[in-house]
Amino acid sequence: MSPSTVPLGQYLFRRIKELGTEHILGVPGDFNLTLLDEIYNVPGLKWIGCCNELNGAYAADGYTRIKTSPAVLVTTYAVGELSAMNGVGGAYAEHAGMIHLVGMPARPLQKARAMLHHTMEPNMDPAIYIQMAAPIRKTYAYLMDDKTMADEIDRVIVACVHSRLPVYIYVPTDVVSVQLGAKRLETPLDTAVRNSDTASEDRLVSLILSEIEKASNPSILADVLALRHGGQDLTRKLAELTKFPSYSTPLSKGIIDEGAPYFNGVYNGKVSFPGVAEGVEGSDLVLNLGPLLSDSNTGGFTREIKDDNLVRLGHDYCQVKGERFDDIHFLPVLKRIVSELESQPQKYKLPRPQSKARLEPPVLNNATSGEIKQSYVWQRLGRFFKENDIVLTESGTAQFGTPDATFPSNVKYITQIFWSSIGYTVGSCLGALVAAKELQHPGRVVLVVGEGSLQMTVQEIGTYIRYGFKPIIFVINNKGYSIERAIHGPNQEYNDVSMMWDYQKMLEFFGATEEKGIKARSQAAKTVEELETILKDEEFGSGKSIQLCEIHMDKFDYPWRLTKQIEITRERMRKAAEAAASS
Amino acid sequence: MSPSTVPLGQYLFRRIKELGTEHILGVPGDFNLTLLDEIYNVPGLKWIGCCNELNGAYAADGYTRIKTSPAVLVTTYAVGELSAMNGVGGAYAEHAGMIHLVGMPARPLQKARAMLHHTMEPNMDPAIYIQMAAPIRKTYAYLMDDKTMADEIDRVIVACVHSRLPVYIYVPTDVVSVQLGAKRLETPLDTAVRNSDTASEDRLVSLILSEIEKASNPSILADVLALRHGGQDLTRKLAELTKFPSYSTPLSKGIIDEGAPYFNGVYNGKVSFPGVAEGVEGSDLVLNLGPLLSDSNTGGFTREIKDDNLVRLGHDYCQVKGERFDDIHFLPVLKRIVSELESQPQKYKLPRPQSKARLEPPVLNNATSGEIKQSYVWQRLGRFFKENDIVLTESGTAQFGTPDATFPSNVKYITQIFWSSIGYTVGSCLGALVAAKELQHPGRVVLVVGEGSLQMTVQEIGTYIRYGFKPIIFVINNKGYSIERAIHGPNQEYNDVSMMWDYQKMLEFFGATEEKGIKARSQAAKTVEELETILKDEEFGSGKSIQLCEIHMDKFDYPWRLTKQIEITRERMRKAAEAAASS
Repeated sequence: MSPSTVPLGQYLFRRIKELGTEHILGVPGDFNLTLLDEIYNVPGLKWIGCCNELNGAYAADGYTRIKTSPAVLVTTYAVGELSAMNGVGGAYAEHAGMIHLVGMPARPLQKARAMLHHTMEPNMDPAIYIQMAAPIRKTYAYLMDDKTMADEIDRVIVACVHSRLPVYIYVPTDVVSVQLGAKRLETPLDTAVRNSDTASEDRLVSLILSEIEKASNPSILADVLALRHGGQDLTRKLAELTKFPSYSTPLSKGIIDEGAPYFNGVYNGKVSFPGVAEGVEGSDLVLNLGPLLSDSNTGGFTREIKDDNLVRLGHDYCQVKGERFDDIHFLPVLKRIVSELESQPQKYKLPRPQSKARLEPPVLNNATSGEIKQSYVWQRLGRFFKENDIVLTESGTAQFGTPDATFPSNVKYITQIFWSSIGYTVGSCLGALVAAKELQHPGRVVLVVGEGSLQMTVQEIGTYIRYGFKPIIFVINNKGYSIERAIHGPNQEYNDVSMMWDYQKMLEFFGATEEKGIKARSQAAKTVEELETILKDEEFGSGKSIQLCEIHMDKFDYPWRLTKQIEITRERMRKAAEAAASS
Repeated sequence: MSPSTVPLGQYLFRRIKELGTEHILGVPGDFNLTLLDEIYNVPGLKWIGCCNELNGAYAADGYTRIKTSPAVLVTTYAVGELSAMNGVGGAYAEHAGMIHLVGMPARPLQKARAMLHHTMEPNMDPAIYIQMAAPIRKTYAYLMDDKTMADEIDRVIVACVHSRLPVYIYVPTDVVSVQLGAKRLETPLDTAVRNSDTASEDRLVSLILSEIEKASNPSILADVLALRHGGQDLTRKLAELTKFPSYSTPLSKGIIDEGAPYFNGVYNGKVSFPGVAEGVEGSDLVLNLGPLLSDSNTGGFTREIKDDNLVRLGHDYCQVKGERFDDIHFLPVLKRIVSELESQPQKYKLPRPQSKARLEPPVLNNATSGEIKQSYVWQRLGRFFKENDIVLTESGTAQFGTPDATFPSNVKYITQIFWSSIGYTVGSCLGALVAAKELQHPGRVVLVVGEGSLQMTVQEIGTYIRYGFKPIIFVINNKGYSIERAIHGPNQEYNDVSMMWDYQKMLEFFGATEEKGIKARSQAAKTVEELETILKDEEFGSGKSIQLCEIHMDKFDYPWRLTKQIEITRERMRKAAEAAASS
């Protein structure tokens, strides 16, 4: 017979486990220790200790991007939650939400306004930090009232799954042992996404299907919020069923199977390969899933798709050629469209034959020797990637270069070109490794990070080693913040980073040595020949041990996509200044 | 002839230089690059690039604690300023303020609410982050209006110096080149601390002098806010003139010359060496300078000084035996008292002979061999410290152990036992090194950090090496978060950290090798004999190269002060629970 009550801490973690989440990320602190004890009371839950809270938040974000269940991050109040802020902010901006549990002082201590460590004057209120996080979360629960705690936990967890945004649960230490009714755990949380306005949804589905029938030159533009809101499989199914020319964006790269004959490239406004912008912008029906129209995801705001040709399928609203459907989530709509097309292929005359052959990307630099150039390296790495790889590319040249590559099938891709916090991928990769483990994912995890970014968050490489993970790590050593050199002050000292670090010793420092039972290998390439040797090495590519490949590149060599976006931005600023001057 | 205007960026850095600040700390980002250009246009200013913004904020805090002029931290909006939050929060809590300059998008872009990188939905307002920092700053300037910019900069800088709290200046990129009148730079900012209510100040000074004359058993208890608010020299002078038995607290340790015959120890309520609490609490006149009454600075709230015996000299208000003087800053008061006592020693019959000999701390553990114990190591390190050393001890066992040590004269001590953010000292030490360089400080810089804390912020060790600094680094390797083991869950896995790191390879990884022209040495001690050999080694102690000494200790060995405070806290909680149950 199960007991009729459970302690709150256990209730919380059982709800989390119910969603499919198996690992809890975070950093202990004296106000969350008793909460952490409850992890061990929930079978199947495990703890992953991170070196610091920012990296922990990045890891949670990375976990969420790979797994459908939300990541969980535990910090301690003030010092921990504030350290995590930038990571949580990025997860908010890019909809890679998490459940952030913050351990707080016991309620009597909070009420007494004791001058505990981590408080501050003037009033020693441990809740002031709750207000600070307001813009970077969907909602929160501040567990102060026994009567509402269970409801609050449930409400906030459901909101996280629905919104894909970060949520916070603030847990005072004395609350961990508050007894909650166990019976409610017998009813799983209802996290399904539904549209309450079924009439609008019905009309929207018919409208889209009729537009699809009428279109002479339809296309699919699948953007990142389709991925983030759980639409990857449906998106792929839609592309597979219709065989419409299909495009991703820099942020959503990989959402469309890049090996498929209908994959046509990465659409990024004027910063796209030849033919790509023409293909999307010349289409009379662009099925645009989950758009996120930030500067670096639209070629510096040069996306030009006419409303008359656009079907927007968003998590917040949908729109068909100017007619807006507020509060309609794309997911149920897309599900019905796919099911309709699948079950009645004759009715919709699908697949319709494509007039044009697939757009193939140009080969930018077919070097076989000499210096390693930006124009060469990304397409080359694209050929190194294998089916089912999880690939992370860091803000900076890696992120602007990778769209040049063509991925094999089923590559899961993580980049953060909207929030653009450098150092992000090193933490995010930890979360991706944890998620891949939970999923028993068959592919490798490959991290591509510049050395300036790596310096930000390097300690989490030690966490990969601590937990026995085996990513392949490429360090782009181009002697400073090259993305900033491209933007301003190429020779300014502030764009330098320490050139003293010896990346060849990094894995050893963090403990990946034979004596400690960890197989590891670090190599460096200064030429194309050296890089080719490494990339073709079977052991390196096997993913059976943690490996590092340092790629030396010139500090003034930039990916063409970066240079082009900067040109576009400068030109727009120049015109705006002229317009302002003449008005 | 000087030009009649200067660009705002230059104006700002000239104001900063005027205060005596010579190094600007921070991390570049595309929205602060043109601002950073202006550093090079102000003779005598230099840039110190940090690995990340949290460490940069810690460094700024450490700089401020050593230098009287405020540190300057530059970040980029959103990602940078949010990463810095915990570090700025600590500087707020412990009054180690800084001028935090945040680079923002150009004003027209802000107004257009463009979906730039680092913005977020719903409204792409780059100013939302300004609100988030509200609790952790004294004031801020958001430079949007040409007409008020110069005034705003001046106002905010003066507020920083006066309050010793963090202030923010938000600088949109287009504002950097706004021309400001150069003439106002001819008048230096007035940063002197004055009390406007001179009548109250007069009365307070007389009252305190008369109390001093009347007292039969006076003492000085000099706390950390006296240090933070620029009162160290005056405090020492007061102690030297009066020869009153003088005490510091855990946070202010070093404020009184510990070699002086009147130094009587570290007062921390019931968590003090024998005789110390009796000395302070039995005094009929405690001159208490700059009190900060947090849990770990009062022996878990066991400070017991009767109001009738207390003269409180604070930056916010002063109080003499129950009579409160609001808005009177101690600094001008202390200056006048010292000047009075100095100029008229006969009038006040000073120095008055002390009845008792100086209280000497007990020797806790006079080991000469075997395992290295908490009871031995801190007093031993105390004997390793030299006159003029700058010593930083990290949150955790180091911080709770160090009060056992007696410092030589003029040791400047940095610890953060109120905010208590682990990893703090590694960043703070960078700032201390920079400040020491500016001051041409004759002593060594010694960092004592636990390995769990080091893992949080380790990359900044690389910055010491990058800039040629030569601290002596002690790494207390006690296999996890021992302070948390002492509090709860000694054997719980969450209190472990990675045991794989090889700290002996750390300096080498970050580039301190002969080939790179850096002399360095790393050693480890598992026994008292080994540690003695290292500590007695002349080269190690010389401070002429960067050196690391790893001290292995048992993970369940805690400093007595930590154990005692935890006992006191548990007992109080138990009583509070009993009281609640019976009411």
